[in-house]
Amino acid sequence: MDLTRRGVMLVIASPSGAGKSSITRRLLAEQENLSMSVSITTRPMREGEVDGKDYHFVSIDKFNHMRDQGELLEWAEVHSNFYGTPVADVDQKIQNGQDVVFDIDYQGTQQLYEKRRDHLVSVFLLPPSIPELKARLQGRALDTDEVIARRLKNARVEMEHWAEYDYVLINDDLEKTGADVTNILKTARISRARQANLSGFIKELQNQIDSL
Amino acid sequence: MDLTRRGVMLVIASPSGAGKSSITRRLLAEQENLSMSVSITTRPMREGEVDGKDYHFVSIDKFNHMRDQGELLEWAEVHSNFYGTPVADVDQKIQNGQDVVFDIDYQGTQQLYEKRRDHLVSVFLLPPSIPELKARLQGRALDTDEVIARRLKNARVEMEHWAEYDYVLINDDLEKTGADVTNILKTARISRARQANLSGFIKELQNQIDSL
Repeated sequence: MDLTRRGVMLVIASPSGAGKSSITRRLLAEQENLSMSVSITTRPMREGEVDGKDYHFVSIDKFNHMRDQGELLEWAEVHSNFYGTPVADVDQKIQNGQDVVFDIDYQGTQQLYEKRRDHLVSVFLLPPSIPELKARLQGRALDTDEVIARRLKNARVEMEHWAEYDYVLINDDLEKTGADVTNILKTARISRARQANLSGFIKELQNQIDSL
Repeated sequence: MDLTRRGVMLVIASPSGAGKSSITRRLLAEQENLSMSVSITTRPMREGEVDGKDYHFVSIDKFNHMRDQGELLEWAEVHSNFYGTPVADVDQKIQNGQDVVFDIDYQGTQQLYEKRRDHLVSVFLLPPSIPELKARLQGRALDTDEVIARRLKNARVEMEHWAEYDYVLINDDLEKTGADVTNILKTARISRARQANLSGFIKELQNQIDSL
């Protein structure tokens, strides 16, 4: 019996370097019917980025207009650039039973909780230790020491909010954590709150009993 | 990283004949660290039953005493017999990270919600249709027509409470429903509320950052 279902909004958050990108990539590759939420941003496009895929690149005027019209589910300012999640895209996917992954921090998650708690499942990934997290950040050789120090400071702030997430996973094994996140998504898909017309189905069963 | 976890209290409820026993048996066979909650009852022991395994058989005086002392998580009267779930057994298992399955109706589930909501995950199984449910009840040849009619009437009442369960699954494929229930249990095991000492672990990570 396939009842129509609503999509899951899956937040995967973590300090930089704790494995969020690998886990998300893996999940997107293995799961059908799942896509990344594409944010709008006012920051300039970087080389290699694709408009509409990495971000929707918009002007500040456009951003302000959307925000003021309530067209953003959440938004943030980072280093004088603005980022936000357009409500229309997400709502349409959820309504059509398509799942959406969000790569946002605790402040974005809090805004999503305020507006769409029933649709949301949130996962926070932790590194097994800070020396290991630091080693990972140094190992990927993307950041200067100064940037790494700032990322670790941010990590400390992010971690203050662990208790706001539905699941907190310590990522000391990418395979295992990946499998856990897959299970979390699969289970969220079959939760009662995801089923769009259970009450109609139950009514039908009750009518069948009444007419025996 | 293995943090101590608390056990899951898993309620599996359904109208008679919708597959609860098969699903539960399968789950108990495949999952370690999972056991059935053993109720106390005042009804006489039947042939083949084992005291302490099928039920703890107790006198009415003993039952009343336990109930009045608040030693039961939930209790019910069915056909002048009393049934109840001793709180001590369950709490000890949960504290030790052992999961417990409950075979109780919506009234028992409501009592558990009142007392242990944080520990509880509840699943309600539905038959794909009433003719199919009736056929299953007739097929197992355990009940007279009169008893079957009563079971269907009870099913109607039970189904009124579908919205009180975390998951409502239509059991039209035992393999699939079994796999779904396994996923529900696995996911419940890793939810934040099951982790007993995450806050200590986070504190440790934060100390590691502070001492860099």
